[in-house]
Amino acid sequence: MTLHYDRFFPQAVNKALTNEPPGSWIPDVPENCIRFNAGYPAPDLVPLAGLQEAVVRLIDEEQDLPLQYLGSPRMEGLRQSVQDRLRFRGISLSGAELMITSGAAQAIDLVGRALLGQEDWILVESPTYMEALEIFRNYTDRITGIPVDEQGIQTDLLRQLLDKNREAGRAMPKFVYTIPSFQNPTGTTMSAERRQQLLQLAAEYDFLIVEDDAYGELAFAEPPVPLKAHDTAGRVIHIGSYSKVIAPGVRIGWIAAPQRLIEAFDWFKKDLNASFVQATVAAYLEKLDFPLHLETLRNAYRARRDLMLECLEQAMPKQVRWLVPEGGYFVWIDVPGTDTGELLTKALQLGVSYVPGKYFFVEPADGKSLLRLSFSYVDLEQIRLGITRLAKAIAESD
Amino acid sequence: MTLHYDRFFPQAVNKALTNEPPGSWIPDVPENCIRFNAGYPAPDLVPLAGLQEAVVRLIDEEQDLPLQYLGSPRMEGLRQSVQDRLRFRGISLSGAELMITSGAAQAIDLVGRALLGQEDWILVESPTYMEALEIFRNYTDRITGIPVDEQGIQTDLLRQLLDKNREAGRAMPKFVYTIPSFQNPTGTTMSAERRQQLLQLAAEYDFLIVEDDAYGELAFAEPPVPLKAHDTAGRVIHIGSYSKVIAPGVRIGWIAAPQRLIEAFDWFKKDLNASFVQATVAAYLEKLDFPLHLETLRNAYRARRDLMLECLEQAMPKQVRWLVPEGGYFVWIDVPGTDTGELLTKALQLGVSYVPGKYFFVEPADGKSLLRLSFSYVDLEQIRLGITRLAKAIAESD
Repeated sequence: MTLHYDRFFPQAVNKALTNEPPGSWIPDVPENCIRFNAGYPAPDLVPLAGLQEAVVRLIDEEQDLPLQYLGSPRMEGLRQSVQDRLRFRGISLSGAELMITSGAAQAIDLVGRALLGQEDWILVESPTYMEALEIFRNYTDRITGIPVDEQGIQTDLLRQLLDKNREAGRAMPKFVYTIPSFQNPTGTTMSAERRQQLLQLAAEYDFLIVEDDAYGELAFAEPPVPLKAHDTAGRVIHIGSYSKVIAPGVRIGWIAAPQRLIEAFDWFKKDLNASFVQATVAAYLEKLDFPLHLETLRNAYRARRDLMLECLEQAMPKQVRWLVPEGGYFVWIDVPGTDTGELLTKALQLGVSYVPGKYFFVEPADGKSLLRLSFSYVDLEQIRLGITRLAKAIAESD
Repeated sequence: MTLHYDRFFPQAVNKALTNEPPGSWIPDVPENCIRFNAGYPAPDLVPLAGLQEAVVRLIDEEQDLPLQYLGSPRMEGLRQSVQDRLRFRGISLSGAELMITSGAAQAIDLVGRALLGQEDWILVESPTYMEALEIFRNYTDRITGIPVDEQGIQTDLLRQLLDKNREAGRAMPKFVYTIPSFQNPTGTTMSAERRQQLLQLAAEYDFLIVEDDAYGELAFAEPPVPLKAHDTAGRVIHIGSYSKVIAPGVRIGWIAAPQRLIEAFDWFKKDLNASFVQATVAAYLEKLDFPLHLETLRNAYRARRDLMLECLEQAMPKQVRWLVPEGGYFVWIDVPGTDTGELLTKALQLGVSYVPGKYFFVEPADGKSLLRLSFSYVDLEQIRLGITRLAKAIAESD
């Protein structure tokens, strides 16, 4: 007799299980393929020796402490280092307004867990980070995308939508999820004016703002000021991560938010604290000149971005267009008339990968001709070669 | 203007927030206090040099691989080592029936997330692991405790309760959560007969069994056979962890369950994979003679248990009684007529801590005269001294 397990699931779970399975956007990339799909740090910028040294020193100094539940004093050191960094960027917090998470993904999930019921409505940027979309869909189907242009989320369209709903007597969104700086996937940055407008709209229409700042420190010129730095009304939930500036594999992220929201997130964060990795990263940071480290990263990624744009200019047919990112990891490309989901098969054959645009939209069809290239994980030679291969794939698909 | 954030929370979240806050059972233990409260491995049994060596070797060999999202081949190695260990204990699994989690706590939370709606009824042992109670209460209030005796959960009482509910036309429980081997907090082990009866009841009344096996390998004599090893009907969700046999701070646990359930858990596991710690533990295990390691742990904890029982015999007044554990970390003590919550103040003054019984019960009053001692974290000298102090606290509280 085979059991039918679905009948043990609550209705909301069965509904969630009808969505695309987790990670379905991850392409099956052959060996030797140039990975423009990977939103990972460059292998040569991951601090291997620094993390080795940190673990050895940590255990020499603290013995079993960071390996027990009790944790280590360095876990408080990690919190302090995050607070210091946020203060440098204009965000002053008490300890009760900060929570360390297992990467930004856990932070986003906790926001959904504490704030979303099945009937709640939320707004995201269109396009937006596919993992966030996947997470939010576990909580609600009611997700609307607000288009992004080169100045970030289009606040005029947002206001129109809110007005229309208010006039119709409908409830306002619970929150707007935004990646204001070097957005994933478009690379665009919300202008200072739009940031003020978004904060104003949140107050006027009474919703919260979830600011995903994963790339905010990786500015190629003047770093943008986070929304949270202007959050006098306590409406911004700010999410950050060491994934892009240290390493994703350590899974260290955080949430900076009003104390009552942090309390609620804490209620549902049931994996206990990852004391070993938290103390390891704290020990690593103790020996790091962080501003110098950031400068190294910015220079390295700027050079990759510059070369990718140069190669695109040289290799791409006229109709192909892209946005110029002022930081972060991504170039967003439009190949008019092409289905980038289909194009990927050809591209992989030619030895280059990317993420098709469809995965970043609430309505996949909206992303049909778009694709995301990451310049972060690949080296300069791979960028040259990869763009040539991509141009060839596009030419052959015409 | 101060925002009132509670109005942003869904009803179920506001309800969950009325429970005791997370970790409220953790006593504020002064320095130099003997920590009989701590369910941690002994400091000298945490493999410090082994983990240092593993990290250095891992990064030397794999460079940035375990620090990226891509992860390392050793993550599969970790899964393999868990599968091998489970097979040794009579549990044969396909890869699709196993999931690595961030400790057993995340595993328990995922079980709640995928299986429990607010109206669902579950059964736990009485007493049971307080963290599990805390986690389940985030999902449902409908939790009933089934008394445990020296043979484990009392299956006759369980059957009576199920019959009564069936006759009344009420729905059956979604699952029974049990720690069959060296239970937390009582240290008792479910007899082979009771195990068969529980499996039989699950089939007869159509519920699932969540088997928390955190201590199952730490047997002082013949190791018990897990429920999952007899689970021909696919009703057992088996949860394990390296917290008690390697170190809790690495946060490595797992769930072994039918594939469809693993799929559902995976849907909601939104912290991505902790590639660095998973690969580190895999690298550590490669060089470890696991059976020998287990033997070392068993001998060390058996010696601590023996001494604690001996000290209790010598120091405790006649009315105080305890159960004799055949493995694990805990001795469960009854001090008739005493409120162990109040006694703790006196005990801490005298330099010894424990966890009062009330935290382990659905109805705290049921645990009034009970308390849990851990012999795992303390050394032999501390056990002698701590039991003397505890006996003094009890004598002075009369």
